[in-house]
Amino acid sequence: MLVQNLKGFRDFLPTEAKKRQYVIAKIREVFESYGFEPLETPALEYKEILTGKYGEEEKLIYDFKTRGGDEVALRYDQTVPLARVVAQYQDKLPMPFKRYQIQNVWRGENTQKGRYREFIQCDADIVGTTSLLADAEIIKLVLDIYESLGLKVRIKINDRKNFENLDKNIVAAIDKLEKIGESSVLSEMTEKGMEEDEARRVLSELSNKPQTETIKFIIQALGENADKVSYEPTLARGLDYYTGVIFETVIDEDSSSLCSGGRYDNLIGMFSKQIPAIGFGLGFDRTIEILEEKGLLPDLSSSSKALVTDNNEKALKIAEKLRTNGINTEIWLSEETDLGKKIKYAEKKGIPYIIKFNGDEVILGNMKTNEQKIINLEEIIELLRKPQGSI
Amino acid sequence: MLVQNLKGFRDFLPTEAKKRQYVIAKIREVFESYGFEPLETPALEYKEILTGKYGEEEKLIYDFKTRGGDEVALRYDQTVPLARVVAQYQDKLPMPFKRYQIQNVWRGENTQKGRYREFIQCDADIVGTTSLLADAEIIKLVLDIYESLGLKVRIKINDRKNFENLDKNIVAAIDKLEKIGESSVLSEMTEKGMEEDEARRVLSELSNKPQTETIKFIIQALGENADKVSYEPTLARGLDYYTGVIFETVIDEDSSSLCSGGRYDNLIGMFSKQIPAIGFGLGFDRTIEILEEKGLLPDLSSSSKALVTDNNEKALKIAEKLRTNGINTEIWLSEETDLGKKIKYAEKKGIPYIIKFNGDEVILGNMKTNEQKIINLEEIIELLRKPQGSI
Repeated sequence: MLVQNLKGFRDFLPTEAKKRQYVIAKIREVFESYGFEPLETPALEYKEILTGKYGEEEKLIYDFKTRGGDEVALRYDQTVPLARVVAQYQDKLPMPFKRYQIQNVWRGENTQKGRYREFIQCDADIVGTTSLLADAEIIKLVLDIYESLGLKVRIKINDRKNFENLDKNIVAAIDKLEKIGESSVLSEMTEKGMEEDEARRVLSELSNKPQTETIKFIIQALGENADKVSYEPTLARGLDYYTGVIFETVIDEDSSSLCSGGRYDNLIGMFSKQIPAIGFGLGFDRTIEILEEKGLLPDLSSSSKALVTDNNEKALKIAEKLRTNGINTEIWLSEETDLGKKIKYAEKKGIPYIIKFNGDEVILGNMKTNEQKIINLEEIIELLRKPQGSI
Repeated sequence: MLVQNLKGFRDFLPTEAKKRQYVIAKIREVFESYGFEPLETPALEYKEILTGKYGEEEKLIYDFKTRGGDEVALRYDQTVPLARVVAQYQDKLPMPFKRYQIQNVWRGENTQKGRYREFIQCDADIVGTTSLLADAEIIKLVLDIYESLGLKVRIKINDRKNFENLDKNIVAAIDKLEKIGESSVLSEMTEKGMEEDEARRVLSELSNKPQTETIKFIIQALGENADKVSYEPTLARGLDYYTGVIFETVIDEDSSSLCSGGRYDNLIGMFSKQIPAIGFGLGFDRTIEILEEKGLLPDLSSSSKALVTDNNEKALKIAEKLRTNGINTEIWLSEETDLGKKIKYAEKKGIPYIIKFNGDEVILGNMKTNEQKIINLEEIIELLRKPQGSI
């Protein structure tokens, strides 16, 4: 038997798992500062809830029949479950309903393209209002999240209404303007059946700025530098279901979007009556990748501040005292007595300090600088309470 | 089509989801204070990784064949994935390996018994040491978790070695002593084929206190009142795989266990060489239920402290100022202008304050007391920053 995880699925060992926890905690804090509340839905849904919702992608859904005979499918996104929840609990939910959802989804993607088959989606949506204020709040929320993570971003916005009377192939061509340039887009538009004059007219008319100006105004009133939001008349976003404002989030040097969304007023009502909505999905893996590249993640190597290398009564008492003073502390738990092994353990876990004993003396060792110091309990507490310390 | 969640699966609407987040955060904090680190494994494993590990329960596993032809199974517990991780990444992991894992598992349980088919497991284990200090730390950890949740518990401990030479049917009978009394246990033991004299001798010999005294001593050195831990010579725990210390956590008035575990030195090596381990699983749903019954959960009805009922520029600026001062604040996002609707929204979400406007005046309303007060921004900030306030 091969002892391994499934292709496209990942184990997160402690250091990676902690990065994820850190980013989730930051995002949640911002969500909640705006009154977004968490929603959790099951990993499995009745298959028919998901059927017919994802177009050609439907073949990527993991579905199966249970021993009990239920036809079920693994969560593929968080929008269809949101629609189900809105239909199922309509009387229980406050409207507008502001919810966030941070759960795994599963897709039978082609792993050769570097895609994962299990990954976290991180969505926030406002259901039940068509107000531009909601659109602006969603965009401000994204800016606040990246601000809180220390990453400088820019948001490109547009309004899908600009493309209202255009064929979707034409919209897809226009969407590429920034990447492939005007002449290539023009020729693609004509290939797709549009007269060249008409194509030129369509491109020139895109420079009208409709609702997006209002949104920028609101964002400014919300205390944000409006320059972070730029009108991008050719931004189209692939998905058919957008009906109004759409946006993408980019960092200066990179053009792929970290976090995208828009208004979709005809989707959430799929299981009941139509109800407007605006929201976004934040690319969780991509965001962590960029934070890591830019050195914006704090040192998350160890939860523990100190390793107490002995396990006599005095050592146990010191460990307990440190813990009750809010200092995460480990005791060496193995029967192994070799100090070298203990130090290797601290190194491997990234524990910054070790506490050793020499008769009645307590010695604090700094793992980075190799400094050692005879010290009493009060001094250890004072020193280790600080975010960083040197002895 | 029925718009509903699957039987045995649950949606967690905001208030419930927040209770879960609160309890998870508390537990994590205690785990990390002892240097336990998070581990996450995929929802799906190769089916053969899970096969043959759960005895008769194996039929409860959700397994299926993917479109790509992989035979897969949904996570059934967190111990088999831990064993896989220990085998797969042995050189990368510090030893002893102290990990915690808080993820969903899926089991095709009989829902008529009130059982869920998707539920959170919350496990902590120490892998790679046979030291009694590790056993004691695990028990202290459980006491600290419930202390941090405000719930008084008692831990019953025993040592499986007490039962070393006994048939497992006999052990199962002894396990019931507290519930059904000595005479019933004796008759069950004789029914299972033991002579009555022998059965009496076995029961009387159980009062020897082996390693459990040492563990109580260590727990006391770790600053805990050792009376919270009591030796229970008839405690057996059903599972075959325990090899040493076993324990259960109970609240005074109730005899079912909230959190159970023990030493299992012959299990984690299922995919490689044997390696000792001790750990526990905390009953997450049961713990939340009890905390709720006892009123030990804080008020988690709303993330928001205030609802700003207008959406003019001044209102937006006030909302932003509150947020930058760490006060979670919502703006009324709907185009609906009726104040009654706004108040209903605040009620439904449990938002404690509303902020209204009357010309240049800002009015703070307390949703509980219905008091209203003309107030300036600085006063609002001061008031809402406090955990509780009255105007």
